[in-house]
Amino acid sequence: MTRRVAVIGGGSSGLACIKSCLDEGLEPVCYESSDDIGGLWKFKENPEPDRASIYHSVIINTSKEMMCFSDFPIPAHFPNYMHNSLIMDYFRMFADHFHLTKHIRFNTKVLQVRQRSDFSHSGQWDVETENKDGKMEKHIFDAVMICIGHHCHPNLPLHDFPGIDTFKGTYFHSRDYKTPEEWRNKKAVVIGIGNSGGDIAVELSRVAKQVYLSTRRGAWIANRVADNGLPRDMLYSRMTNVLRRMLPFGLTCSMAERKLDNRFDHSLYNLKPKHRLFSQHPTANDELPNRILSGTVQVKSNIRRFQGSSVEFEKGSVVEDVDLVVFATGYRFSFPFLASHVTSVSGNKASLYKYVFPPELERPTLAIIGLVQPLGAIMPISEMQARWATRVFKGCTKLPPVASMLKDVQCKQETMAKRYVPSQRHTIQVDYLNYMDEIAGLLGVRPNIPRLLLTDPRLGLKVLFGPGTPYQYRLKGPGKWAGARQAIFTQWERVAQPMQTRPCDDPKTKRSFMWPLILSAAVVGWAAYVNRNNLPTALLDKIIVYLPAQD
Amino acid sequence: MTRRVAVIGGGSSGLACIKSCLDEGLEPVCYESSDDIGGLWKFKENPEPDRASIYHSVIINTSKEMMCFSDFPIPAHFPNYMHNSLIMDYFRMFADHFHLTKHIRFNTKVLQVRQRSDFSHSGQWDVETENKDGKMEKHIFDAVMICIGHHCHPNLPLHDFPGIDTFKGTYFHSRDYKTPEEWRNKKAVVIGIGNSGGDIAVELSRVAKQVYLSTRRGAWIANRVADNGLPRDMLYSRMTNVLRRMLPFGLTCSMAERKLDNRFDHSLYNLKPKHRLFSQHPTANDELPNRILSGTVQVKSNIRRFQGSSVEFEKGSVVEDVDLVVFATGYRFSFPFLASHVTSVSGNKASLYKYVFPPELERPTLAIIGLVQPLGAIMPISEMQARWATRVFKGCTKLPPVASMLKDVQCKQETMAKRYVPSQRHTIQVDYLNYMDEIAGLLGVRPNIPRLLLTDPRLGLKVLFGPGTPYQYRLKGPGKWAGARQAIFTQWERVAQPMQTRPCDDPKTKRSFMWPLILSAAVVGWAAYVNRNNLPTALLDKIIVYLPAQD
Repeated sequence: MTRRVAVIGGGSSGLACIKSCLDEGLEPVCYESSDDIGGLWKFKENPEPDRASIYHSVIINTSKEMMCFSDFPIPAHFPNYMHNSLIMDYFRMFADHFHLTKHIRFNTKVLQVRQRSDFSHSGQWDVETENKDGKMEKHIFDAVMICIGHHCHPNLPLHDFPGIDTFKGTYFHSRDYKTPEEWRNKKAVVIGIGNSGGDIAVELSRVAKQVYLSTRRGAWIANRVADNGLPRDMLYSRMTNVLRRMLPFGLTCSMAERKLDNRFDHSLYNLKPKHRLFSQHPTANDELPNRILSGTVQVKSNIRRFQGSSVEFEKGSVVEDVDLVVFATGYRFSFPFLASHVTSVSGNKASLYKYVFPPELERPTLAIIGLVQPLGAIMPISEMQARWATRVFKGCTKLPPVASMLKDVQCKQETMAKRYVPSQRHTIQVDYLNYMDEIAGLLGVRPNIPRLLLTDPRLGLKVLFGPGTPYQYRLKGPGKWAGARQAIFTQWERVAQPMQTRPCDDPKTKRSFMWPLILSAAVVGWAAYVNRNNLPTALLDKIIVYLPAQD
Repeated sequence: MTRRVAVIGGGSSGLACIKSCLDEGLEPVCYESSDDIGGLWKFKENPEPDRASIYHSVIINTSKEMMCFSDFPIPAHFPNYMHNSLIMDYFRMFADHFHLTKHIRFNTKVLQVRQRSDFSHSGQWDVETENKDGKMEKHIFDAVMICIGHHCHPNLPLHDFPGIDTFKGTYFHSRDYKTPEEWRNKKAVVIGIGNSGGDIAVELSRVAKQVYLSTRRGAWIANRVADNGLPRDMLYSRMTNVLRRMLPFGLTCSMAERKLDNRFDHSLYNLKPKHRLFSQHPTANDELPNRILSGTVQVKSNIRRFQGSSVEFEKGSVVEDVDLVVFATGYRFSFPFLASHVTSVSGNKASLYKYVFPPELERPTLAIIGLVQPLGAIMPISEMQARWATRVFKGCTKLPPVASMLKDVQCKQETMAKRYVPSQRHTIQVDYLNYMDEIAGLLGVRPNIPRLLLTDPRLGLKVLFGPGTPYQYRLKGPGKWAGARQAIFTQWERVAQPMQTRPCDDPKTKRSFMWPLILSAAVVGWAAYVNRNNLPTALLDKIIVYLPAQD
């Protein structure tokens, strides 16, 4: 029977794995190459090789109620969107509360993970490690969980930028950006309009002489602070998800695009891409429109070439005397310690069943955790994967036959290729709620809405019309948590609490959940009709857009 | 006849005055105590006594089409909300184009402005100046225009903060704030939620460990980037203004407050004041909600007292180890060079006819220009005042009898007292469009809408349904400018142009002006009905809110 599990990496996924192993009675040993937990989220002044590195001001784009581990809500007084230092505080609380740290070997790098000779029978692995003194060790494990994330290697496509070797200013990858001070009164070009590119452009624009934000395709820009100042991800309910899935892709895109254009017209701002909103990983940025309207950030097209200190953009315009170029061009991932026949990565594509299990291994004792790029928070997803994987290791949950798994992988790849702009950014995309439900279904913890509505209607309504907070996956099944119901009932209180820093006498608006119930029932029928008849209707659009998560 | 005019101050009001004098054939001599034009807008690393001083990142809150001088549009490629360095560029272009600089005596301070002994007959003034070498001079002028603004003396009400003398950290007035770098990883308290307080809190929050924003009353927060990403002040039309004036104050406030709450719920964010939206000078801040939701700015109540390095807020909470306190507590104005019988200021209140003329002077040869706090841009207002004042100096336009003027002053003070929260911030408030029309009416340059609709309907529609850009006051009368009509027709192009920095193939949305015409006609009737019957209606509310300026 599986007992000892190697967990590679002590970031958020690694912590979730250690916890899941302990919950399932397994013995985890976590190898972390640095001296601390937190992975990506641990701020370091000096980036280390083969590691992501964040800038000083990074604030997460998913809100605290959506990003927490499912049985450990983030303290009520923590803000909704947390600075990286607070995320670290939360991880430490989590690690302390569940006594995870003692299972971690810090400063220990994994060199190789190899199937043992009797793998087809035992499912065991040889894991070779090296500590910071250079001491190498070999260990035998019954299973391995790889939690190194997908921000391992900066993607710096210099060959796409002719003349970069002649560039007289400074250039670096966004991972090497820390603070803006140094660039006061300088001219900077930021390449790439993903979350890092947008953030860095905005931050530099407060000190720089001028910032140019270069984008090949343009982008749809969402904001964290959504209607009524609520966290955007808290406004997407299971009900909205049902409606969105029923409606044609083009229609749901149009509705959401109209909403974003209402905030600022992407055509007017020359950011409008040719692709649809849901065909690209979204960029969240609350400050970019104001920086563009005040001209401190200028949006530019792709760079044609560098020449000395000037940068020439496509379709002609040239900017002279550029001091800094930041390549916010993303990351590539790979598993250098793993033989390619176990699982191989090329162009950020890996063949994994549900993004977790290499489908063709004889024994399902190796899981990749957190190798997804979700529309939503990644921590609860890693945790769900870890809960599932540990059950699979133990044999409590079975994987389907290889052929089915391969078919599922292929099917997912095709769906992704159909929906997304071809790019190595879009190889591991998942939609939070759909993917969580998918894995939860395999694990037996997916909330049964009709049953809930019958047995505990108040809770049922909250699960259906409220945000898809991770607590929903602790209501039943393996890993059931007695606090889950209460956590769901108090989730909006934890949203409000961090802002109660100035005592006010003003009575807060009370939320009602009757109207969305009635409205949604009507809209479901209508949506089904529209879907069958392929009719985009303006009124439906309005209703869906204004159908927020209620509680 | 009036010929020589002393203009005191070479900021935006001073420049407008020089230009108006030249236009009217007068001889201006401008005394500027510093070595450059621009006044408030000239960034200086070290603040000077009796002068406002801006921080490095200041961006103006009024958009370029609304803030420009009426016969000199801001270059099309300039951004809509301009950084202070660009505002200076614009002022220089204006000064160069109209050859204003040669009329300015730099480094020359005005010590005294006194009525000559024959004032009742001649209306002349003795003006005593001192240059930087200490050389004093006396000059005789036929008229005087005072353009020193209302940001002369920082208001630092230390006596309201018990224990400030024990405070161990640093404190200063917002005028002494320049850049945030120094406060990295420090704790800062910003007092006051006006435009400076909000801006500085947001800026510090990107580097500081924690920022606390202390506000006694709370505030309504507007954003520059309004619907569809258009500049907020461009969305307020003459038509909207008519409707707003017809509806009860409470109803217009409710409608606009609902719109702001839709962006972020001021109750949830604990910013909601007890007073109504239009009872306080608005704070514009596009980034504050995101900083509050991410907790980097915490809103606090008024400060009860300081003790060592701790700050105690009302209703109990205490913050320890505060490194910095910024008093964003505004400014006071006064006219130290003027005898108090000419005009006196107390508690930021001055008795001035239309905020320009001391009503009881025997001869109307002294004008205060730019002593208003507008909801809207101040530059065109100063310019309008200057155009009017020079016509009054010349005798082309007469002032009414003293009694009428005093009645008007009193009436304005009563209206202000009724509408605004009592505060020395609210002594010189004007609404841009109403005030411009008022002065334009006296000067004979107020656009005649019915006539325009008949004689030049395209222009008439633009003036009625479009933003109240200053060009409208150059269509006729003294100072008529041949380019005004064209400037109105191209105003939206100049809004869009600065963002055309990335060539896109996407066709831009065409604006139509027929629907607002029809809708507005209906709404006017309705509003009249509502007003007569004092009925607040939800539907009317929606229509008004969605009735943007069209062109």
